[in-house]
Amino acid sequence: MTPDPRGWTPPEELADYATLDHDRLARRGLAEAVLCDGKTVEHLHGIAGELAARESRTLFTRVREDQVAVLLEQLPGAAYDPVARLVAWPGEPPEPTGGLVVVVAAGTSDLPVAREAALTARHLGRETRTIADVGVAGLHRILGRLEVLREARAIVVAAGMDGALPGVVAGLVTAPVIAVPTSVGYGAAFGGLAPLLTMLNACAPGVAVVNIDNGYGAGHMAAQIAAPV
Amino acid sequence: MTPDPRGWTPPEELADYATLDHDRLARRGLAEAVLCDGKTVEHLHGIAGELAARESRTLFTRVREDQVAVLLEQLPGAAYDPVARLVAWPGEPPEPTGGLVVVVAAGTSDLPVAREAALTARHLGRETRTIADVGVAGLHRILGRLEVLREARAIVVAAGMDGALPGVVAGLVTAPVIAVPTSVGYGAAFGGLAPLLTMLNACAPGVAVVNIDNGYGAGHMAAQIAAPV
Amino acid sequence: MTPDPRGWTPPEELADYATLDHDRLARRGLAEAVLCDGKTVEHLHGIAGELAARESRTLFTRVREDQVAVLLEQLPGAAYDPVARLVAWPGEPPEPTGGLVVVVAAGTSDLPVAREAALTARHLGRETRTIADVGVAGLHRILGRLEVLREARAIVVAAGMDGALPGVVAGLVTAPVIAVPTSVGYGAAFGGLAPLLTMLNACAPGVAVVNIDNGYGAGHMAAQIAAPV
Amino acid sequence: MTPDPRGWTPPEELADYATLDHDRLARRGLAEAVLCDGKTVEHLHGIAGELAARESRTLFTRVREDQVAVLLEQLPGAAYDPVARLVAWPGEPPEPTGGLVVVVAAGTSDLPVAREAALTARHLGRETRTIADVGVAGLHRILGRLEVLREARAIVVAAGMDGALPGVVAGLVTAPVIAVPTSVGYGAAFGGLAPLLTMLNACAPGVAVVNIDNGYGAGHMAAQIAAPV
Amino acid sequence: MTPDPRGWTPPEELADYATLDHDRLARRGLAEAVLCDGKTVEHLHGIAGELAARESRTLFTRVREDQVAVLLEQLPGAAYDPVARLVAWPGEPPEPTGGLVVVVAAGTSDLPVAREAALTARHLGRETRTIADVGVAGLHRILGRLEVLREARAIVVAAGMDGALPGVVAGLVTAPVIAVPTSVGYGAAFGGLAPLLTMLNACAPGVAVVNIDNGYGAGHMAAQIAAPV
Amino acid sequence: MTPDPRGWTPPEELADYATLDHDRLARRGLAEAVLCDGKTVEHLHGIAGELAARESRTLFTRVREDQVAVLLEQLPGAAYDPVARLVAWPGEPPEPTGGLVVVVAAGTSDLPVAREAALTARHLGRETRTIADVGVAGLHRILGRLEVLREARAIVVAAGMDGALPGVVAGLVTAPVIAVPTSVGYGAAFGGLAPLLTMLNACAPGVAVVNIDNGYGAGHMAAQIAAPV
Amino acid sequence: MTPDPRGWTPPEELADYATLDHDRLARRGLAEAVLCDGKTVEHLHGIAGELAARESRTLFTRVREDQVAVLLEQLPGAAYDPVARLVAWPGEPPEPTGGLVVVVAAGTSDLPVAREAALTARHLGRETRTIADVGVAGLHRILGRLEVLREARAIVVAAGMDGALPGVVAGLVTAPVIAVPTSVGYGAAFGGLAPLLTMLNACAPGVAVVNIDNGYGAGHMAAQIAAPV
Amino acid sequence: MTPDPRGWTPPEELADYATLDHDRLARRGLAEAVLCDGKTVEHLHGIAGELAARESRTLFTRVREDQVAVLLEQLPGAAYDPVARLVAWPGEPPEPTGGLVVVVAAGTSDLPVAREAALTARHLGRETRTIADVGVAGLHRILGRLEVLREARAIVVAAGMDGALPGVVAGLVTAPVIAVPTSVGYGAAFGGLAPLLTMLNACAPGVAVVNIDNGYGAGHMAAQIAAPV
Repeated sequence: MTPDPRGWTPPEELADYATLDHDRLARRGLAEAVLCDGKTVEHLHGIAGELAARESRTLFTRVREDQVAVLLEQLPGAAYDPVARLVAWPGEPPEPTGGLVVVVAAGTSDLPVAREAALTARHLGRETRTIADVGVAGLHRILGRLEVLREARAIVVAAGMDGALPGVVAGLVTAPVIAVPTSVGYGAAFGGLAPLLTMLNACAPGVAVVNIDNGYGAGHMAAQIAAPV
Repeated sequence: MTPDPRGWTPPEELADYATLDHDRLARRGLAEAVLCDGKTVEHLHGIAGELAARESRTLFTRVREDQVAVLLEQLPGAAYDPVARLVAWPGEPPEPTGGLVVVVAAGTSDLPVAREAALTARHLGRETRTIADVGVAGLHRILGRLEVLREARAIVVAAGMDGALPGVVAGLVTAPVIAVPTSVGYGAAFGGLAPLLTMLNACAPGVAVVNIDNGYGAGHMAAQIAAPV
Repeated sequence: MTPDPRGWTPPEELADYATLDHDRLARRGLAEAVLCDGKTVEHLHGIAGELAARESRTLFTRVREDQVAVLLEQLPGAAYDPVARLVAWPGEPPEPTGGLVVVVAAGTSDLPVAREAALTARHLGRETRTIADVGVAGLHRILGRLEVLREARAIVVAAGMDGALPGVVAGLVTAPVIAVPTSVGYGAAFGGLAPLLTMLNACAPGVAVVNIDNGYGAGHMAAQIAAPV
Repeated sequence: MTPDPRGWTPPEELADYATLDHDRLARRGLAEAVLCDGKTVEHLHGIAGELAARESRTLFTRVREDQVAVLLEQLPGAAYDPVARLVAWPGEPPEPTGGLVVVVAAGTSDLPVAREAALTARHLGRETRTIADVGVAGLHRILGRLEVLREARAIVVAAGMDGALPGVVAGLVTAPVIAVPTSVGYGAAFGGLAPLLTMLNACAPGVAVVNIDNGYGAGHMAAQIAAPV
Repeated sequence: MTPDPRGWTPPEELADYATLDHDRLARRGLAEAVLCDGKTVEHLHGIAGELAARESRTLFTRVREDQVAVLLEQLPGAAYDPVARLVAWPGEPPEPTGGLVVVVAAGTSDLPVAREAALTARHLGRETRTIADVGVAGLHRILGRLEVLREARAIVVAAGMDGALPGVVAGLVTAPVIAVPTSVGYGAAFGGLAPLLTMLNACAPGVAVVNIDNGYGAGHMAAQIAAPV
Repeated sequence: MTPDPRGWTPPEELADYATLDHDRLARRGLAEAVLCDGKTVEHLHGIAGELAARESRTLFTRVREDQVAVLLEQLPGAAYDPVARLVAWPGEPPEPTGGLVVVVAAGTSDLPVAREAALTARHLGRETRTIADVGVAGLHRILGRLEVLREARAIVVAAGMDGALPGVVAGLVTAPVIAVPTSVGYGAAFGGLAPLLTMLNACAPGVAVVNIDNGYGAGHMAAQIAAPV
Repeated sequence: MTPDPRGWTPPEELADYATLDHDRLARRGLAEAVLCDGKTVEHLHGIAGELAARESRTLFTRVREDQVAVLLEQLPGAAYDPVARLVAWPGEPPEPTGGLVVVVAAGTSDLPVAREAALTARHLGRETRTIADVGVAGLHRILGRLEVLREARAIVVAAGMDGALPGVVAGLVTAPVIAVPTSVGYGAAFGGLAPLLTMLNACAPGVAVVNIDNGYGAGHMAAQIAAPV
Repeated sequence: MTPDPRGWTPPEELADYATLDHDRLARRGLAEAVLCDGKTVEHLHGIAGELAARESRTLFTRVREDQVAVLLEQLPGAAYDPVARLVAWPGEPPEPTGGLVVVVAAGTSDLPVAREAALTARHLGRETRTIADVGVAGLHRILGRLEVLREARAIVVAAGMDGALPGVVAGLVTAPVIAVPTSVGYGAAFGGLAPLLTMLNACAPGVAVVNIDNGYGAGHMAAQIAAPV
């Protein structure tokens, strides 16, 4: 480090800030993912360049507005979804294999998280279907979708506020349910804590929970469950 | 206070430890209640004696085992319910007036709280019906009771664990729902915190919440709502 | 989903993001409500258009500044209240029926939440009265309003900071009290957690609680309680 | 309810306290389970009797010492495991189908929860293997078991204290990991809250979480994931 | 430390476990106090013996049942109050000086904490008066005691559950109010957290708060405030 | 309320949003205060105008930038302190009476809160002294100020981060200490929660606590304690 | 697993419940430790037997009363300290090397945790000194021990309640301070949470924190810091 | 204080807002540090001027953008690192003495905190090495750095999200590990609370924890541990 009057930070090598998981695909059989939110544009530029050189299928999650351009430039053919804040490279998902993943959004406001889950599962190789706005305040709405729910090998349910939907769905189907609490709500929802606790305490067995707003994790888990045997 | 070698506490007058709310019946039109749990047997003896002299209808809630005898002795004709831990004096409830109060227990383990609510509403003058073990893990159970739920002027729903039932019930009826979180559950139920948050965040309007395990408060509120107009 | 170089999100059909609760009025006898805060302007445009076609009385709550125009344009005759952040359609409330709903704001800063409660109850068909700035730090203020409080069939009390007012009011009247904690306060008020806990632990029976800042839920509950029998 | 001088509680019918989920097997294809902890011995007697008459495969979880005798008496051929606090009826599990479920206990103290998971999965029809005491403080221990971990279709990892093991395991395998936080630990483990948060924030995708100490839920979820396709 | 086959703990000197605050009386002008709850009987024996030799006025707080005898034996003339769990030595309090301290218990169950406060203030040299069971659910009860409240130089208010009383009292008087939250209550009282938050957020100025159930601290603070000028 | 196409809110009367506490000075002998933060400029305009007409000494706390002008315009001769965010009217404090109030800021960053406390006490009629940046990391700093601390009749200590200073000060003086936790700090300071808990658990008696950042409350309490007897 | 009518648990092999960390001494150069609290007597019997055969220096922490006998029997020459709840084998500690470890207990009640730290450091090969009852309420007590504190290469400070002592000590010395919050205290100490937060927010640098009541961890860390270079 | 129509705040003397710790270097043998975040530019100007006059080596931490210029102007030769938000004066660090400090960043997003730790240790006189992006999701990454880790006398590990890395590192080395939780993560990471709890509950001994994002504290502690003996 050579200090100079105004600042210490010299140009960095990739190895100074990232240790890419080169053998993850081999070890786990699944594409790599890069969580973008806490990274500088410079760091992403370096990481994307390295990945482009390796031609390894990758998802970039929680992409900030200022990071989109550098990713699309470094990774020609990548696709960006502004709702899910996801960049996939290559943009074209693989041919679907394994079972169906159904993604459910309890309310319209839960759609960004649900969409992140659906796109993740799709890019990891599963067929997906999405159902929106079927919260428990009007039970007939979810009861009207039983047919598609019962076709699923894995179900993702994203819900904020009371987070009651995953437990209700799990009581109606045989497939496992991955519940994603969302930070949708206010007051005593405490940024997703309320639906998180609801889901962990679901009365029906067959519910497991991922982090608040973690659509990527839910979609990844569902893709693993519905993988070809 | 005259200190003596072993202790200071002289015999107490009632005024030293209790200020009975003599005009509550006049002011609010509702029987008085005494929360027993934190009181000594001596204090309860004094309070019950005073009330017996005034012949004022009273409920004793959260009665400890060691307090039952002194209450039944001081208040002849009182009735004790060991499940609800309630003593009512007189034991015979008044003739029902106003609308029907339906009390729902999500699971068998929520019955003590539900029973406290039902007995409270009954002793405040309402007709009551109780439905048990109709949690959301098997929706057909609550859907099979819609008829009686829709006869109610006020509904109490006691639920632990995920606490999802009150929101589901509220979405199906026009009567207001008083939700009582119970401390039934384990782990991330955190002694009733999880169902409390679920209920406060219920997606369906028409749900208001009382304290954890507060069957008395729920039954009281329901009796007020269903009072004769 | 057809990915393209810059983004995946194609035009959406209403069914992709919302499942309107068509039979809610029939099932519950109450107007529908749409929570606007988490929705995009595009989604609201679609929802409002659909509702306009059905001519179904609706409240839009927690309306963001950028959403007002699209609602007023899609729903001619709608009324917007910037304090309560509420849009009602039609703007003219129905003729009042049932009992009186009194709404109390503990402090001047609690007025937006109180106003949301009052407008909600009014649009669900109740007569309402509002009392402001009568917190417990100067008891004579609330004691001076006993007359109107005792005319109410249901009372809503919105309070932040110590949240002590609902319990005090409940001790003075026979009507049930719906308590709304507000996020007014600072420090150990923890965004409304302090008044929420105070209200759940109110010493006087006859208090039930809704979510922090949930004026809509409080007004809805009060309207149900004061409904014509 | 006929009050009598000493108590109100008359003999109850089963319908007064339990609504058995008769069609769960049909609806979900999985055996029923009864959470015993909050139930009275009398209630369990009634429930077990009813189930015995229906001859429906059932697990009884969190069985208290005083409840064992009545279950074994009402359900001849049932088996009781005191470590997992589980009664299975019939005691003989079904022939295994589907994939392998591997259950991992991070420490010796996590074994009761791990065992509940393993027995649950076994009685729902899966083959199971258990690995014990392979926490992250000595990485060579878990690295030495990679072979069996990689044979699994679903993995359950029970861990208390720092709860770091599930994320480490998930980074090494392709099968989905169901993480169960346990209440093992002290101080800032806060009864399982610390490992719960760790697991929800696992850096490796492929982890989903169930309630603290909920071995039953983890085993059930794993059995669903590893079900025959 | 000489280890032996069964245990290491040799007889201890006082200096091994306690460093008495010899000059506290000089430095602060107030008697010393010993918190007994976490100490062994052996430690208390040593500490009391040392203090007896120094003839220094001392309060022993939170005395456990098994510690009473050793204190009364080591300190002849000491007085023990089982309700407040307090031992004072000498048992006779000093002549009162300074202003009046009024101690208020919101409910009968708050009396042990209130009594600890009153005895502490009395033994630190103040005249005290106690008022019991005047919670805000029946405002006329506290309003009926205004005269004595307005004579006080310092007021202690002990309250559990909603903890609303200190703020109401502070709005009625000029003396400063020391609020003591108590662990009386259940459910969302969370062991005194609810009244603690209420008191910290009291709308009326003139309220300061001590730890939950800390009657000693409240009485000490009140005695300081009401000290002769 | 006359709804109109664009908004419902008509001009308001003062009585619609504020109930001024006209007899507070008589009842409590202390000037009134108005918490400004949650109020609209319009509301403050009305309140200030009313107070100007009554010529009643008043403090305006937590004044927002956009509120200063209207206050200074409505209340000629008022003084504004931007550090403490306080407006006093009249700007000239009264002649000091009673004892000295010493205000201590643990760090430079705690000065705004300390200043609010000092100005409040000064405007309620006490003489004040302020000491800054004497935190416990360098004990010689506070030990060097013992002389002035021991002159005080009441001491206010504002501290963030570990909040350890009030307990240390209380161990050195006879005057009561009012502790104000500040939101200064980061991470596990949790917005002032850490120093709040520290202060409530202070080992030295003679510490009572007000809300986080509540300099006004601390100064008010100190002024009451140091009032002329 | 061969189920039988009354229970499933067959005799277990050590490998069923424990994977001993055979190469820890080689890998880390430090003795092994076994946390006993959550283990059955049977498990400890097996583990101790295995360790006895390997002749590997070991500490057993948080030993329950019912576990002492089996440890002392399996490990001849082991020493048991009932205050620290520690069994060391062999009972004789090694010759001291490296620097001095000073262990400070803020109050008498913190001694068990301090003792666990001191014995751990001693058995890991360090010389130790213990100082007791020198909390910040009387600063002269800790200031009187500066000489020994300044001889230390590492200092452990155990403190409950306000947890202020470690920060004060760190401001006076050059050695690093390991702070151990204890669960000593009541009310808002929340089982050690208050001192934990205080210590994490210590104003003086040079403080790092271990888990609540984790004397073993503190002593281990201190022994590592003071190891011979 | 001379109030004037628009504001009270007159020019301040340094003594009004800061009490510099003049003898810290003598007392503790370590450079002084100034936490800048909560200070005004005016205050920093005064403090830096005073320090420049004393020529005392100083670190300025958490420097805000608007504070950089005044520091660099007052302290010629100072160096500013924008990633670590640190200003060191003089900019040139001292010659390294003592042992090696290795700083590990679990992910790329943890680099600012890790860098603050490394620069702090370097300016306190230690040699440092930094390793980045070696989280537990891909264990081979940290296992590949064992050689450098085992050269360290003290190790700092900064990690957000699950915070599992410090415990894993501690299990592999003999040097003590200072763990720094970072606020990197989302949802149930709760601003760093999750990794904080993980680290406090680390299964491997040899981990102690500093405040969330407190790279300065971690680097300082590591420099003390690795100081020349």
